[in-house]
Amino acid sequence: MSTKVKRFPEKGSFTRAARLALADRMFTELRALSVDGGGVSRESYGPGEQAAMEYCAVIAEKEGLAVRYDAAANLILELAGADEAAPCIVCGSHLDSVPQGGNYDGAAGVIAGLLALIRMKRAGTVPPRTIRVMALRGEESAWFGQCYLGSSALFGQLAADDLDRRHRTTGRTLGDYMKEAGAEVERIRDGERLLDPATVAAYIELHIEQGPVMVARDLPVAVVTGLRGNIRHGGVVCRGEAGHAGAIPRWLRHDAVMATADLLHRYDEHWRALLERGLDLVVTAGMIATDPEEHAMSRIPGECRFCLEVRSQSIDTLEAFYQLMRTEADNVGRERGVAFEFDRRSLSQPAVMDERWIRHLLESCAALDLPAERLASGAGHDAAVFANSGVPSAMIFVRNEHGSHNPREAMALDDFLHGADVLHAALLAPPL
Amino acid sequence: MSTKVKRFPEKGSFTRAARLALADRMFTELRALSVDGGGVSRESYGPGEQAAMEYCAVIAEKEGLAVRYDAAANLILELAGADEAAPCIVCGSHLDSVPQGGNYDGAAGVIAGLLALIRMKRAGTVPPRTIRVMALRGEESAWFGQCYLGSSALFGQLAADDLDRRHRTTGRTLGDYMKEAGAEVERIRDGERLLDPATVAAYIELHIEQGPVMVARDLPVAVVTGLRGNIRHGGVVCRGEAGHAGAIPRWLRHDAVMATADLLHRYDEHWRALLERGLDLVVTAGMIATDPEEHAMSRIPGECRFCLEVRSQSIDTLEAFYQLMRTEADNVGRERGVAFEFDRRSLSQPAVMDERWIRHLLESCAALDLPAERLASGAGHDAAVFANSGVPSAMIFVRNEHGSHNPREAMALDDFLHGADVLHAALLAPPL
Repeated sequence: MSTKVKRFPEKGSFTRAARLALADRMFTELRALSVDGGGVSRESYGPGEQAAMEYCAVIAEKEGLAVRYDAAANLILELAGADEAAPCIVCGSHLDSVPQGGNYDGAAGVIAGLLALIRMKRAGTVPPRTIRVMALRGEESAWFGQCYLGSSALFGQLAADDLDRRHRTTGRTLGDYMKEAGAEVERIRDGERLLDPATVAAYIELHIEQGPVMVARDLPVAVVTGLRGNIRHGGVVCRGEAGHAGAIPRWLRHDAVMATADLLHRYDEHWRALLERGLDLVVTAGMIATDPEEHAMSRIPGECRFCLEVRSQSIDTLEAFYQLMRTEADNVGRERGVAFEFDRRSLSQPAVMDERWIRHLLESCAALDLPAERLASGAGHDAAVFANSGVPSAMIFVRNEHGSHNPREAMALDDFLHGADVLHAALLAPPL
Repeated sequence: MSTKVKRFPEKGSFTRAARLALADRMFTELRALSVDGGGVSRESYGPGEQAAMEYCAVIAEKEGLAVRYDAAANLILELAGADEAAPCIVCGSHLDSVPQGGNYDGAAGVIAGLLALIRMKRAGTVPPRTIRVMALRGEESAWFGQCYLGSSALFGQLAADDLDRRHRTTGRTLGDYMKEAGAEVERIRDGERLLDPATVAAYIELHIEQGPVMVARDLPVAVVTGLRGNIRHGGVVCRGEAGHAGAIPRWLRHDAVMATADLLHRYDEHWRALLERGLDLVVTAGMIATDPEEHAMSRIPGECRFCLEVRSQSIDTLEAFYQLMRTEADNVGRERGVAFEFDRRSLSQPAVMDERWIRHLLESCAALDLPAERLASGAGHDAAVFANSGVPSAMIFVRNEHGSHNPREAMALDDFLHGADVLHAALLAPPL
């Protein structure tokens, strides 16, 4: 195992300034392809994501890299290694975004991988193993209520009924969208493993940090130790009873909004108490609505819909809090004469990153005179799917302000290039 | 003052059975004109309300009653009295409904008034005073966020900017709708008094009960003592900060949904405490929603919109609770780093019914061998506008199951006819 990072000689025209210019151009052109209001919208398996994929494919082809799509319609950009028979190294990230989200979430990892391949290709360098940049589909749950679509499909982990999930606005199914994008939907529906984990030596993903820690600690890059898993319900319905807002006394009401407020407030209070005990947990109800067809200012709301998401690095904490959530829903239901109906629960396992690759990435940071720091990831990433499928996985975080999933995300290109350089160095001398 | 109710001889063909049949037919045909899903939708100053007005006008014309519209486009059906110069007696109610609401809320009062006029007309009876049935426009706040539109306009109490309020779905202004319905919008905008209260000796409104009390107490009819007033905000916005649901720890969040849940739960707790002290109060947040263009399961919600309504028979309780609401909004805002923005507050004063008419209606009940009971109204009605404009006002409630503002409202026609008979008797021998 090589623990010494070899400095790659910069020759030809692909200097740091040239890489910075290419990255700047790619981010700018990607944004222009998918601009929506103040942010970008790149729908999972939809038009914005497709345009981004085709854009990256054109750039890679011009540089002489191999370009193809896999059976889940993920884009693959490849540079053959010295030992073509050996398991390859995959790097990359996703190209979709949340609605009116930021330009860097996902795209940064694809562009960083592409930059590394271009740098090797232009330098005439043959890496020890084949390096595959994967631009994954459908990482965001915002469009179909389920995350990691492209990577889960690869490992046969997309349930048949996940394909029947409906798009948030068009109502058409995920299966329809996947088919249109060119995925082999029948194989995916059968749960076939489209990618053998044994053929992948490692999965390395560069991503912007989505929390405020690296800005606060002044870290341009960091190495991820593990990823929070999550439990989600896309649709919880509180069913009470509608009635005249002026004429029904409090004790005869079954007010769905007051019951939901009570429940969410209980979750918030439990969450606070658990944090004080040192547990890792975040709780979010990102969407809530009464029925626009029925609600009125003078009517006791008979129905309130919302979604729930809980994340933790510990599966035990996740499951324990989930039980508490269901118990409290029963309690509020009994006390207020309402019923909370939960749709199918989805679970993403927390993931632990590969210690050998963590150390390798930290050494790559140090060799480039960058801080070499470990950080836990609050957000989930495709790396969790690869890791939980048995592929040694690791992640590089790049500093970013204002979080992500909003148009105000702000990554300095200089920080991005530090991250891309760490990735490049690590890929050139994998610890294998 | 006459306190003895004279029994009206039933002659010709308009027996109780005939009145029951006509009422049944009218309710059935009215429902058919405005059926929407399981309920009826009669938009304020819109097509469903207009169709109901025209239907009642046709029936009245066939019976030889005078028919016209006033300057606020309310429908007037009139039978001249012996003393045409004396102030008239107005009875009636409204013809609009909430979206997918019930068929009896409002319409019952108009049909009861019309039945009384038809009964007098067919019998050749000339009442001592002119009796005017008014089918009022826009009593429900559901369509434009403001209630009592037709009656407020009559008394010059519709504010100029109320005319700029927008329809809940079409977005067109109330002024546009009023104009199309034939109202004299410029006079209304100027706050001109279109009806001189001195020309109206009394306003008597029959209405279904919208609470559960009369069913519980086995009262087919009851006489109303007073009406709850209300304070309303059609749009309160909680502004927090959107962000990644997995990556931002609790202490750095500005979650608009959790803040709103906290606030509503505080209102609910204060409400419970005040009820225990014997105050009259109901609190409702009938509509709530995160922004469908921006919200997602994996995004901390940056915005949450809701409406608020508080009702009480006491203006002091209303104002005191309102101050508490604003104070708690400030508290939650400060504690959670969010801001609650309240739109223009609307206030409907509580109203006290006229004691002389209350006694007269109770005597009319007793003379018809019906229970003579007093009841407070939890809901507001146009009677409050008349009463607060200086017109002696009174109300007859008819028993009704499942409340109102929903399609399950259920009034027995037999109960309705009892109420209509009380109205008829009271109009024939007014306490003047």
